[in-house]
Amino acid sequence: MTPVVLSGGSGTRLWPLSRASLPKQFLDLFEGSLLGRTLARVAPLGAPWVVGVAGTETLTRRAAAAAGVAPERLVFEPEPRNTAAAVALACHLLRGAGRGGAVAGVFPADHRIADEEAFRRAVRLAAAGARAGWVVTLGIRPDRPETGYGWIERTGEELARDGEGLAAFRAQGFREKPDAATAAAFAASGRFVWNAGMFVFRPDDLAGHFARLAPDLWRAIAAVDPAAASPRDLAAAYRDLPGESFDVAVMEKLDRHATIPCDPGWSDVGSWDEVARLDRADGRRRGAVVGLDGGEESFVLPHRDKVYAVVGAPDLLVVDTADALLVARRGSSQAVRTVVERLAAQGRPEAAAHPFEERPWGRFEVLREEGHFKAKLLRVDPGQRLSYQAHRHRQEHWVVVRGRPEITLDGRLLHPAPGEAVVVPAGARHRIANPGAEPVELVEVQTGSYFGEDDIERFEDDYDRV
Amino acid sequence: MTPVVLSGGSGTRLWPLSRASLPKQFLDLFEGSLLGRTLARVAPLGAPWVVGVAGTETLTRRAAAAAGVAPERLVFEPEPRNTAAAVALACHLLRGAGRGGAVAGVFPADHRIADEEAFRRAVRLAAAGARAGWVVTLGIRPDRPETGYGWIERTGEELARDGEGLAAFRAQGFREKPDAATAAAFAASGRFVWNAGMFVFRPDDLAGHFARLAPDLWRAIAAVDPAAASPRDLAAAYRDLPGESFDVAVMEKLDRHATIPCDPGWSDVGSWDEVARLDRADGRRRGAVVGLDGGEESFVLPHRDKVYAVVGAPDLLVVDTADALLVARRGSSQAVRTVVERLAAQGRPEAAAHPFEERPWGRFEVLREEGHFKAKLLRVDPGQRLSYQAHRHRQEHWVVVRGRPEITLDGRLLHPAPGEAVVVPAGARHRIANPGAEPVELVEVQTGSYFGEDDIERFEDDYDRV
Repeated sequence: MTPVVLSGGSGTRLWPLSRASLPKQFLDLFEGSLLGRTLARVAPLGAPWVVGVAGTETLTRRAAAAAGVAPERLVFEPEPRNTAAAVALACHLLRGAGRGGAVAGVFPADHRIADEEAFRRAVRLAAAGARAGWVVTLGIRPDRPETGYGWIERTGEELARDGEGLAAFRAQGFREKPDAATAAAFAASGRFVWNAGMFVFRPDDLAGHFARLAPDLWRAIAAVDPAAASPRDLAAAYRDLPGESFDVAVMEKLDRHATIPCDPGWSDVGSWDEVARLDRADGRRRGAVVGLDGGEESFVLPHRDKVYAVVGAPDLLVVDTADALLVARRGSSQAVRTVVERLAAQGRPEAAAHPFEERPWGRFEVLREEGHFKAKLLRVDPGQRLSYQAHRHRQEHWVVVRGRPEITLDGRLLHPAPGEAVVVPAGARHRIANPGAEPVELVEVQTGSYFGEDDIERFEDDYDRV
Repeated sequence: MTPVVLSGGSGTRLWPLSRASLPKQFLDLFEGSLLGRTLARVAPLGAPWVVGVAGTETLTRRAAAAAGVAPERLVFEPEPRNTAAAVALACHLLRGAGRGGAVAGVFPADHRIADEEAFRRAVRLAAAGARAGWVVTLGIRPDRPETGYGWIERTGEELARDGEGLAAFRAQGFREKPDAATAAAFAASGRFVWNAGMFVFRPDDLAGHFARLAPDLWRAIAAVDPAAASPRDLAAAYRDLPGESFDVAVMEKLDRHATIPCDPGWSDVGSWDEVARLDRADGRRRGAVVGLDGGEESFVLPHRDKVYAVVGAPDLLVVDTADALLVARRGSSQAVRTVVERLAAQGRPEAAAHPFEERPWGRFEVLREEGHFKAKLLRVDPGQRLSYQAHRHRQEHWVVVRGRPEITLDGRLLHPAPGEAVVVPAGARHRIANPGAEPVELVEVQTGSYFGEDDIERFEDDYDRV
């Protein structure tokens, strides 16, 4: 089968750790990024595809490369358009690749699944259902009356059963985020499961459902060149695409779909409350925390090796980063979305961006920015190089602290060792390359009159940014 | 009269902002440091003296210089020995300076007084009492049944009254930190005032009280050379000195003392609860804070221009710094002392030191420390210079970002401009001086194998640290 990992989330629900520049699927919360773990989890099912978005292309490519996913199995939407568009696009491209009759599955990149074997067993049973023409969801057996999820009702009609007693049932009805009483009734009924956004189907079958149930969406997607992979290829199709969820656009209207109640230790990692719940369940403690008078019960997500003291408050969620701190009472972390909206409305950069950035060539991080200078730490990955560029309003001073970069300065080649430095006057053309096998790191000190990232003239670029 | 400012506190109660390296009196919480404000407040009464301690000599000298206090009116204890020793030392040195018969007053450096005119009026009435042979305390009229303070009971015997109705009464009895019921009774009685640690007296009179009531302490102090000013001068006397408070050693045993009930808007700034109380009373908001669902009621002391979100928790004290964060429920900030003790027991440097340090020549701040490099921001004040020094295990790279330093490198003189840099190889003798009138700033990048502050050989030093 072909697992398709949907990596388009721009999640603000784990702010300030997740931001538009670093969405949830790239966070390393449970030993590796959620996207990396998802790719590793689905790889035994088949070579995965990834549907990403332009805004996080660099991060997605890096995670895919680390997981051994070939670049031709990556596609990047120009911008997130919710799950219906992403699933339709995957369905269309799989058909274009001659895989319309083979089973495929879509899996969110930003969920956590503790029991990977149970997950794959359920997917394999779902694949059997898909081969029989069904669209099959993985239904998570509820352990609490959760009001934040969508629920799926199964019928008593058993469609299939594997050797270990896992069964697929005909399903009926999707119920988005019920109220507390309804959720309690659902949880008690034994007939309701959580919708985890994991669907298994044959693209040819699903194409028919899309054409019937979401004809406008499907028409736009079906017009795309089946070899499309880049935001540029998809710009025209996405211009006026509706931003519906796959649940609403298709599943809720589908008369013939199945669900497999299972318990793979699933979490949507959808809020700090949920991360804290998982930490508590796993007995995980993070960082250097002194808790007093109940403070030890609070959840702390530390920034680097900073130390934390929580006194007299047992029910807090404390999430720290270099430039933004969240303190929320347990149970109130859904309001983080409002925090991000407020900050965005105030024009605060912390709403969407970190003081570090992942770039195709590596990473930079601002160590200090003042009116009269800016200091950064740059990392250039092996085999990568920055664009050949010049700045009008600043000079740069690079001190090598790791590795052996190759620096081009107005046509000359320099090879400074750690502890050596290069001065780049304003106006000079310059480039940093890492021809070695280890990362190169430099401390960059900018002086001059303006330090914005837009003071850059690119003469040549490996990543087409000229 | 001679106001004597006691600046020996090593307060941990405002951790993580205050630490042993930066005690409370040096914090800029209310427009200027508490010490600077105290010096400005007492200066109209007479040229102040300052009793400081060796550990914070640099900070104390800087604040005294800024306030125009002549260096010969500064004395530094080798280490803090509580208030009895500091008051006795001031008393002894004033007598040695021929001021034994003139009125003096001692005033803590780390309190806040909102109504400075009311304060000075009370001190002037106290001075009249001192001239009549009394030891006179400023008694703060209570506005709440505070259990954290010491209380003083006045008698009905009025000793003096000024033209505006302020009166001095004979006092009796000091009561340290009463329980809640007692404090309530005290506050309701109209006869009790708070002990704010402000005492007015003639040194000759107080010398007699010390000799009678604390003979061991007085014997040790009276043996000091009356010209003593440095920790070295005082080392012998302080070796075995008892660490009692002036209240316990003298005032509680004194049969003849007076108090002036007054209301100068006094606060001991003794906890984050108290700082939050003052902020609320003054309508002061600090930093960029998004408060939701009650979070806007919490107190936040921000770090630099970081942004804060507090959700669903109205009763928190959040104090952030570069390397340590405190979150405490309102009313529990007394436990901060225990936090500091725990961190110290764990050997965490954040218990006592900040990642920046004030030095006689200026200041440095660690921007980033890794195993393979360390980046600092240095500020060299006008007219100052670092020692002529060398390092064995690291080379240093300085990029000038402000001002025009004069750099000595193995005997050569260099004058780099902003944006220019100097490389200091391991083993090279080097010195940075600021001959200009504006501060010099440099970003220093250290590379090598060891970055401890103890890898330093000093060949010459303006501050006697060779």
